[in-house]
Amino acid sequence: MSQSSLKSRRNLALGSGAELFYDEPLEIVRGEGVYLFDKAGKRYIDMYNNVPCVGHANAAVVKAMAGQQATLNIHSRYLHEGVVRFAERLADLQHEDIECVVFSCTGTEANEVALRMARIATGRRGIVCTEAAYHGTSELVSSLNYVGNREPGNGEIRCFPYPDLYRPLMQGITEAELCEASLAQVTRAIDGLNADGHGFAGLIMCSIFANEGLPDIPAGFMSMVTELVHQAGGLVIADEVQAGYARTGRWWGYDETQFKPDIVVTGKPMGNGLPLAATAASRVLVDAFRSRTRYFNTFSSSPLQAAVGMAVLDEIEQGDLRSSVTNVGAHLKKELQTRAERYDCIGDVRGRGLFIAIEMVKDGLSKKPDPDRADTIANRLKDKGILLSTDGKFDNILKIRPPLVFSFENTAEFLTAFDETMEEIGDR
Amino acid sequence: MSQSSLKSRRNLALGSGAELFYDEPLEIVRGEGVYLFDKAGKRYIDMYNNVPCVGHANAAVVKAMAGQQATLNIHSRYLHEGVVRFAERLADLQHEDIECVVFSCTGTEANEVALRMARIATGRRGIVCTEAAYHGTSELVSSLNYVGNREPGNGEIRCFPYPDLYRPLMQGITEAELCEASLAQVTRAIDGLNADGHGFAGLIMCSIFANEGLPDIPAGFMSMVTELVHQAGGLVIADEVQAGYARTGRWWGYDETQFKPDIVVTGKPMGNGLPLAATAASRVLVDAFRSRTRYFNTFSSSPLQAAVGMAVLDEIEQGDLRSSVTNVGAHLKKELQTRAERYDCIGDVRGRGLFIAIEMVKDGLSKKPDPDRADTIANRLKDKGILLSTDGKFDNILKIRPPLVFSFENTAEFLTAFDETMEEIGDR
Repeated sequence: MSQSSLKSRRNLALGSGAELFYDEPLEIVRGEGVYLFDKAGKRYIDMYNNVPCVGHANAAVVKAMAGQQATLNIHSRYLHEGVVRFAERLADLQHEDIECVVFSCTGTEANEVALRMARIATGRRGIVCTEAAYHGTSELVSSLNYVGNREPGNGEIRCFPYPDLYRPLMQGITEAELCEASLAQVTRAIDGLNADGHGFAGLIMCSIFANEGLPDIPAGFMSMVTELVHQAGGLVIADEVQAGYARTGRWWGYDETQFKPDIVVTGKPMGNGLPLAATAASRVLVDAFRSRTRYFNTFSSSPLQAAVGMAVLDEIEQGDLRSSVTNVGAHLKKELQTRAERYDCIGDVRGRGLFIAIEMVKDGLSKKPDPDRADTIANRLKDKGILLSTDGKFDNILKIRPPLVFSFENTAEFLTAFDETMEEIGDR
Repeated sequence: MSQSSLKSRRNLALGSGAELFYDEPLEIVRGEGVYLFDKAGKRYIDMYNNVPCVGHANAAVVKAMAGQQATLNIHSRYLHEGVVRFAERLADLQHEDIECVVFSCTGTEANEVALRMARIATGRRGIVCTEAAYHGTSELVSSLNYVGNREPGNGEIRCFPYPDLYRPLMQGITEAELCEASLAQVTRAIDGLNADGHGFAGLIMCSIFANEGLPDIPAGFMSMVTELVHQAGGLVIADEVQAGYARTGRWWGYDETQFKPDIVVTGKPMGNGLPLAATAASRVLVDAFRSRTRYFNTFSSSPLQAAVGMAVLDEIEQGDLRSSVTNVGAHLKKELQTRAERYDCIGDVRGRGLFIAIEMVKDGLSKKPDPDRADTIANRLKDKGILLSTDGKFDNILKIRPPLVFSFENTAEFLTAFDETMEEIGDR
C-alpha cells in the first residue's frame, strides 16, 4: 500500500478535511520513549507530543492498562477503591482549596464541566477568555476559540488581549503599565457582560497561555487577574490540559505562573494516550454541579482510567521527571537563546520547562511574524528526524513540547539538526 | 477498608452527588464474561452493562489493547493504516449511503458532532427529539434530555411524544391512528421551529427508543417519520449508542425498526470499555462538517481506538453473537411474557434481542406505573446475584441489557431468581 493511496483511502473514510501534518504526511507505525518510527524504519525524535508524557509505549502504563482491562473496566455507579484513590491523589496534588474531582474523557468534556460548574455556582452566564484561546471542540467550548478572530462574537463570551512582553499592547510600554492595561481589558470584558445582562460567571485561561504562544507575561499578572475576577464575583478556571502534569517542571502551570484557580481542568497527558480528563474544584463547587446536573459519563471514573492514571503519576514521580524537565528545559532554552542572538529571524525564545516557543520574524526590529519560515523549518526538521510544529496567533512560532522523558542527549541531537537548518535557510 | 468508609471517601473525593446503584451499593472488583464479582467473592450475572459487549475482561480485546498501546498510540495527524481500515469497516457495516466516519471518545461527543453536522448541512438550528430522550451530557446535547419534563424549553429544541402501543396518546386508538397522530406531533414541532425563525435542521432519536422504555411502535412509523423529516428539509440522526452493535441481534437498531438515517451515532459498546464513539454519514455531510469546523479530537482516530474497535467487531463476528443475541433474547422474552400472563403487576414485556423491558404497573387495567415495585425487584435480584436496573419515563421499567455473550444458561438462572422474587413480592 503506497502512502498516497493510504492518504486517499483516509480522505474517503474519514472525510477530506481531516487534518494531516507536513507537506508530505508521515506514516508513523511505532513509538518508543521519545522516539517515533515511520513505515520505512526511519527514526524521529518526537518534540511535539505531550500526550505520551512518560514516553511512547511506556511499559508500566501498558502493564497497568492491560492488567486492569483484564480484571475490571466498568462504569462508576458501583464502588471501586482504585477510582477513589486516584481522585484523592489528584486532589492532593493541587493547591489546598481543590478537594474534589469530576472525571471525564477529554479536555473538551472537562472544560464543559468547568464552564457549567462556574455558571451553576454563580447563577450567571458570561465567560471571559483570551482573544487567542483554544479550549476544545464542543459547541459551548468551541465558542471560546479564537474569539478575537471571529465576528460576530457570542454575546455570552468576551475576550481580552493576553499580555505579551514581546508584543505589548502599545510600543514603549513598561511591564507594569502592560499589566495595568491588560487588567483594564479584563475589567472592560466583565463590565460588558454585566451591561448586556449576561452577568459574569468566570474567566478561563491556560495557566501558561500555551495556544497564545507562551508569552512572557508581566510579573504578578495572574494573581492580580484572579483577585479582579473574584472581586467581580466570578470564578477562575485554569485550563491545565497543556500546562499541567509537570510540563513546566512543576506539577501545575499555576504553580509556575503563581495564582490559585478555583477550578482546574486537566487532560491530555493524564492517561499517556488513554482518554482521560478531569475537572477539580472545591467540594462546594463540585457538589453544586453534581446535584444540579446529575453528571454521569459512561467511560469515566472507571477502574481503567484510575489504573492508567495512577501509573502515569507513578512514572512521573519515580522517574523524577519534574527535575529532569526543569534541567533539560532550562538547558535547551539557553542554547536556543544563543541562536536568537545569532539569527535576526529568531525574534524571541521563551517558555517554561519542556514547553518552548521560538518566534520567527521577518526581522528583529519590525518583529513582523514570519509563518512561512516557521513552516519551512518544521518541514526541514522533519526530514532531519525531528518532529515539532508551528503555533501561535500568527502561526509563526515553532512549538517544542516533547514527552517529559526528553533528555540532554536528545537536546544535543535536536540542536545539531536545528543549526543545520538555520545554516540552510536562516536570515535569507 | 469497610464499604461505608469507602463510600464516604468517595463522597469526599468525587462529590456527594456522584450516583451509586442500589440501596446498598456494590463494590465490584472483578469481571469475567457475563459475570461480575464483589469484594466478598460473590458472583453476579451482569444483566445491565452494554459497554462490555463481548464480555468483561475479554481476552482478545485485552490483547489488542495492550499490543497496540505497546506499539503506538498517537493522534490522528499522521497517516495510520489501522485507523483507516477501522473507519472503512465501520462504514461498510452501515447502509449504503453512510460512507464516512468522524471518530470521537464518547457518545456525548459523537452526538455533538451529529447535531453540528446537521446544522452545518442545513444552515438551520432547530432540532426535534422525543419528550423522554437522553443523548448525553454536554451543554448542547443535554439540552435535548427529557425535554418533556422541563420548563421553559430551549427555543431551538422541540419534542414530540414518541408513539407507544402500550400507552398510546389516546385510549382506544388504533395502531394506524397512533402512527398518524405521532407524525402529526412531529410536524407540529417542525412547524413551531420554522414559525419561530429557528428553521429545522434535523430530528434525533434512538433507533429503538431505549431511554423511552423500548416501546412497541406502530408499523412503518420510523420510515414514515424519516420521509416527513426529509420533506421538511431536515436530516435524521439515529442515536445507535444503545441500539447498535448487535444489541437487537442485527448490527443496527435502524435495521430492526426499518429506516435509513442520514447520520448514525455509535458509542458505548464500540471499545468494550475503551472510550470510543463515532458519527457516520455520507461523504458530503462529513466533508462539510470537517471543512467548517476543522474538527480534531486528541484521543480519537487513534491506533489504540482502531485496534480495540477492530477486536470488538472480530469478537462479535467470530462468536456469531448476532445469532446468539437473537435466539437467547427471543427465548428470554417469551419466558417473561408467560410471567406477564401470571402476574397482574407485569403490565408489559417487550424489546428486541438482548434489550428487554418489563413494565411494572399497579394493575393491568389502570396501567398505573409502579416504580417502587420495580425498584424493590431490582434490589432483591441484586441480593440473589442478578444485576439489572430500572428505567423509562416513569422509572417503572426493569431494564435487561446484558453483555451480548449472555447465554441460555444465564437465562435459566435469571428466571429462577426472578420467579423467586415474584413469589415473594408479586401482586401484593
